[in-house]
Amino acid sequence: MEKLYIIKIGGNVIDDDISFASFLRSFAAVSGKKLLIHGGGKIATEVGNRLGIESKYTEGRRITDTDTIDLVTMVYGGLINKKAVASLQSLGCNAIGITGADGGLIPATKRPVQQIDFGWVGDVKQEQVPVPLWMYLLAELVPVVAPLTHDGHGNMLNTNADTIAATLAKALSGLFEVSLIYCFEKAGVLSDPSEESAVLRELDRDNYRTLQRENKLFAGILPKLQNAFEAKEGGASDVRIGHAADLLSLVQKEAGTEILIKS
Amino acid sequence: MEKLYIIKIGGNVIDDDISFASFLRSFAAVSGKKLLIHGGGKIATEVGNRLGIESKYTEGRRITDTDTIDLVTMVYGGLINKKAVASLQSLGCNAIGITGADGGLIPATKRPVQQIDFGWVGDVKQEQVPVPLWMYLLAELVPVVAPLTHDGHGNMLNTNADTIAATLAKALSGLFEVSLIYCFEKAGVLSDPSEESAVLRELDRDNYRTLQRENKLFAGILPKLQNAFEAKEGGASDVRIGHAADLLSLVQKEAGTEILIKS
Repeated sequence: MEKLYIIKIGGNVIDDDISFASFLRSFAAVSGKKLLIHGGGKIATEVGNRLGIESKYTEGRRITDTDTIDLVTMVYGGLINKKAVASLQSLGCNAIGITGADGGLIPATKRPVQQIDFGWVGDVKQEQVPVPLWMYLLAELVPVVAPLTHDGHGNMLNTNADTIAATLAKALSGLFEVSLIYCFEKAGVLSDPSEESAVLRELDRDNYRTLQRENKLFAGILPKLQNAFEAKEGGASDVRIGHAADLLSLVQKEAGTEILIKS
Repeated sequence: MEKLYIIKIGGNVIDDDISFASFLRSFAAVSGKKLLIHGGGKIATEVGNRLGIESKYTEGRRITDTDTIDLVTMVYGGLINKKAVASLQSLGCNAIGITGADGGLIPATKRPVQQIDFGWVGDVKQEQVPVPLWMYLLAELVPVVAPLTHDGHGNMLNTNADTIAATLAKALSGLFEVSLIYCFEKAGVLSDPSEESAVLRELDRDNYRTLQRENKLFAGILPKLQNAFEAKEGGASDVRIGHAADLLSLVQKEAGTEILIKS
């Protein structure tokens, strides 16, 4: 099967113009079929502040009210997505910017209200992912996917970019040999959160549980790891987590933390 | 050749939630291959006001400074485009929202500074339009195009939606029997701007020049007519201008003003 690189870039890197531009140059240089999923970052909060839309959080998680879904639709689906597309086009990379609504790519359901009402947040219906991406990839287009889905009833939904990356990795694993690479601002999963160089070369669920029990993982990485394990178990050939600046080494499997099913 | 409907919807209709929703229902009901180009409308001005970005005009034409291109990229490429896509998806229409940057669809050049510096405004390079749209149409996707292009050097450009519609009509006329329909808030081209019911059934360049000489055309329709004539002369099979609420009659060639090369 042909290789496909599914690369996710996180919000902290997007927030830094120089890092993001450098990352996009590396992404454009990755040869072969590839797609990019980008997160949101602080730009939405900044634009929201200027618009008088207050960011609301419950237990550290953003609540997406009606003003906020309009805000992130503008910022994620418009500003960040199209600026990345224009940059990639200038680098000779034939990018096409889309959301989970476009072409019905990623159907989702509004998260049910339980203890918390998250608002217009989408949970991906993983069993129903269609694959129009396949067509873009065949046509040598490079999809750039914003972290938005839709509910099929006319509403856009705010959706975690790590989850979208894992979902697409699983959906495309039957058609391609998928490498899923989560890029963020650290060199990988750290065995000690206070030591930036303590990068684990690999991680399986057993090690993960041990580190979690010993409180050695920083909270922000838990949902990312959950998605990474699901993608690996769902058929992705190589899943790894590493620094955005190391993208070309991550592609060569020479950097970051590799996610394993069993050690 | 197979029929293709290229339908442009103007900003005044988009600004009215009820009219726009009704228009999208009609658009979804058009059978056969189709694509939608949408304008901007006052939403960008409103969001810009809230963001403290002043709308600047010279001789009635918007000047697109750096803040403004970010603004319209958010509002046209994000908010309006994705809301339309989500609505169409809910109506069973497999819409995919794109700009002229996506897939390198519509290369453009930043308008040269002459008497006026229009800022980040794109003039379409008409001879260079590629046709990845053809792939979407083959795959039964319905492109929804925002009025933005790119310069190939990493910059998004603000571009007139009427011009994009005409450009795509010309580019696709070799592949399809193209009907280009400009929808706006009037029933067609009026022979008397003070009489809403004085709709011309057809208009050629001779009548156009006569009406223009007699000051019988309202200023806003001149660039639209220029684009309409160019599309007709460029190979579009049927070009007409009419009311958004009459879309299904316009598709049947039973309403609006038909643009003719020669009477």
